Amino acid sequence: DPLARATAELATGLFSVSQARRKPKIPKGTRDFAPEQMAIREKAFATIHGVFKRHGAVAIDTPVFELKETLTGKYGEESKLIYDLADQGGEICSLRYDLTVPFARYVAMNGVGSIKRYHIARVYRRDNPAMNRGRFREFYQCDLDIAGSYGLMIPDSEILKILTEVLDALDVGRYAVKINHRRLLDAILEIAGVPAAKFRPICSAIDKLDKEPWEAVRAEMVEEKGLAPAVADAIGTFVCLKGEPRALLARLQHEGRFAAHAGGRAALDEMATLFSYLDAFRCLDKFSFDLSLARGLDYYTGVIYEAVFTETDQVGSIAAGGRYDDLVGMFNPSAKQIPAVGVSIGIERIFTIMEQKAKAAGQVRENETEVYVAQIGAGLLEERMRIAAELWAAGVKAEFMYAAEPKLQKQLAAALEGGVPLVVIVGEDELKQGLVKLKDLNARTEEPVPRAEVAQAALKALGRAPK
Amino acid sequence: DPLARATAELATGLFSVSQARRKPKIPKGTRDFAPEQMAIREKAFATIHGVFKRHGAVAIDTPVFELKETLTGKYGEESKLIYDLADQGGEICSLRYDLTVPFARYVAMNGVGSIKRYHIARVYRRDNPAMNRGRFREFYQCDLDIAGSYGLMIPDSEILKILTEVLDALDVGRYAVKINHRRLLDAILEIAGVPAAKFRPICSAIDKLDKEPWEAVRAEMVEEKGLAPAVADAIGTFVCLKGEPRALLARLQHEGRFAAHAGGRAALDEMATLFSYLDAFRCLDKFSFDLSLARGLDYYTGVIYEAVFTETDQVGSIAAGGRYDDLVGMFNPSAKQIPAVGVSIGIERIFTIMEQKAKAAGQVRENETEVYVAQIGAGLLEERMRIAAELWAAGVKAEFMYAAEPKLQKQLAAALEGGVPLVVIVGEDELKQGLVKLKDLNARTEEPVPRAEVAQAALKALGRAPK
Repeated sequence: DPLARATAELATGLFSVSQARRKPKIPKGTRDFAPEQMAIREKAFATIHGVFKRHGAVAIDTPVFELKETLTGKYGEESKLIYDLADQGGEICSLRYDLTVPFARYVAMNGVGSIKRYHIARVYRRDNPAMNRGRFREFYQCDLDIAGSYGLMIPDSEILKILTEVLDALDVGRYAVKINHRRLLDAILEIAGVPAAKFRPICSAIDKLDKEPWEAVRAEMVEEKGLAPAVADAIGTFVCLKGEPRALLARLQHEGRFAAHAGGRAALDEMATLFSYLDAFRCLDKFSFDLSLARGLDYYTGVIYEAVFTETDQVGSIAAGGRYDDLVGMFNPSAKQIPAVGVSIGIERIFTIMEQKAKAAGQVRENETEVYVAQIGAGLLEERMRIAAELWAAGVKAEFMYAAEPKLQKQLAAALEGGVPLVVIVGEDELKQGLVKLKDLNARTEEPVPRAEVAQAALKALGRAPK
Repeated sequence: DPLARATAELATGLFSVSQARRKPKIPKGTRDFAPEQMAIREKAFATIHGVFKRHGAVAIDTPVFELKETLTGKYGEESKLIYDLADQGGEICSLRYDLTVPFARYVAMNGVGSIKRYHIARVYRRDNPAMNRGRFREFYQCDLDIAGSYGLMIPDSEILKILTEVLDALDVGRYAVKINHRRLLDAILEIAGVPAAKFRPICSAIDKLDKEPWEAVRAEMVEEKGLAPAVADAIGTFVCLKGEPRALLARLQHEGRFAAHAGGRAALDEMATLFSYLDAFRCLDKFSFDLSLARGLDYYTGVIYEAVFTETDQVGSIAAGGRYDDLVGMFNPSAKQIPAVGVSIGIERIFTIMEQKAKAAGQVRENETEVYVAQIGAGLLEERMRIAAELWAAGVKAEFMYAAEPKLQKQLAAALEGGVPLVVIVGEDELKQGLVKLKDLNARTEEPVPRAEVAQAALKALGRAPK
């Protein structure tokens, strides 16, 4: 049928034209990083790297996707946000949702007995994105975890020390680290009279206290989750408590209801030990003991924490973590447990703050070029290339204009715009005398240097030792 | 039905037990990186980063997945290897297949007129993995591309200079860079009498010449692709030619068949210009002009190249690239073309070589810890913590054992095993005199230092300036 074929061809043609002409897009909830953003991001990563290495951590890396079964049953209600790969034959895989579960899988699979590792990588969540508030579907996490059987609260306290060092080094403003203990929360719920089956839903209600007032959370407990009003009020007397760690600890230790509860007493003893260690590390002043901190994830078993900004009106945590002693065992064929504790720093909000600061402070250099190799007159492209090659060989960062006969004015403008401090100017007359000009754009000086020593002269002008 | 329910519960129980007991796995064709591998990988990346920055390149980053339509129609037959995400509602996305197409999409989407950018990131191919030969489904590419309207062959030559600097800096052994021109290949096919419709399939046959002898490739052309034997033989007289760039160029320029072919003549003129620039950059000796180089991808329009090892028996390319002047235009709503040229360094084989070298040379340190803080006697955990905190504050990389009362022998063994050069030993008796011991494990010396000056003493022993 020639008519049908012609129609089909026309439709295909129109389709491919509309394809070609459509403005290109990236997936919802993701973003590109432009050069000036990358310059800031690389600086932040270098800072975090530096702190992690100062504490003797080692790096590992895992694939961006895992077998789907690896992620199944680890995230509770949040599992619905996992990105699956299409079934194209072979294994069923999902993009990693965090770095903790792949870490536990790594430890179990490789029979690792103990490790202090960091991992800086992207994770994926099919969440409702809120780009301007720093919530993306693809975002970086900077994780440090310590796995192994160690003295009570010792690795926990170093993790928290590391967290404060990272936030201090990034210099992003005032923050506080809220801290609590999962078993203390369990004790509160038990003492208040919450039935065991309701622990999880009530915990997730408590977790909303950083965004909602107690009245709203109480209403959720009573109306939605069917808690007796007196039980909710009993919870309320505890979870509104927060403050300086040792002061609140002393108050709770003298509180009769905890003294009579073995689990609660044990959790308070662990907190006392932790606070001593944080004091020895000289960072206890950054912490707030906060009985309302609950953390959504299923796998925590001990101390839990969350860092928040205190001087901006930005909502949400910048880092969080806790102890999870049972997660590695879920992957171990022998069910052998490897206790672990870790922290995950969500760097996206920190990038946003650093970007705002950099913009306020003026130009961010996108590259680090030190010398621009320019020519005056004609026929000197290959001479510029030879000089650039000599500079590169000496370890000097150098560029030149990609044109056969560029105007000097244009070359100087390019150097100034890029913030390049030095310009080498090649001209036919000077070359005949074996010279080139070395121009310092900051000092506004210019001096002739021997053509044969151009790299050494540049290094000297940059205040760097010759290679 | 209580029986059915009991059976179902039993089955679920058994299933979850078998889940828990199964040995954990990672997806086929992917791998974890252990700390000693990461130490090597980070060194390689730092080297590549350093070369890219020396040439004034800027960094960008793009999401790990793109809209599926972005990748469609860019990879020819290889498209079947693209990983798709599952359709979970919303947009249809695929994992990136290379970094070039996302770069072209970025340039078009952001209206970039010119950029010299690098991107070091993982790409994904549902290929048949061959792990021991360095072929993975998830692997790193290190790309540098220059987009913009510039003088003929100038950015092309700098890309090739950068490629040689990277391979030299990584010090992975002897290599050669094969170089050819797409339009020269077109001219060869036209001169030989290949019908235009068969250019692509014949090109992909030629591309196999690095793995198969000419006889096999000729048979494919004649028997599978229906080329007349005389036409295949005419191709053969050309594509077996390779050698020192300027010598082969001169031979081809004096070859009557090219002199009479406008496209071929123009391509040879471009190669002549390129070789002059490579000579100015002092790297022409790394190149081999090779008429058999064809490159599989559809989007190349000018010079093409591929780096291969020449001293090992490893097969396959370590880097490849070329000019692609029409790719950005495929994404531009106005169809505006931004010409571009780039190179992609496939780092996996290079990692393998570096790992073998490191193993042969002895221990690779997984971290960089400088001081191990040890105790002799009892009750000194918090004192060790205070000393560690002072070292960290001074920028010294320090660790201590996570135990309340560790034996000195065990602590010294841990320091030795980790290759840590210094040990601070805290003991009750010395502390009373305001002293600790500083032990140098390499020099096998030990000296008392004032407790209050432990960080300064460590810095001095490490040969570092105080902070």
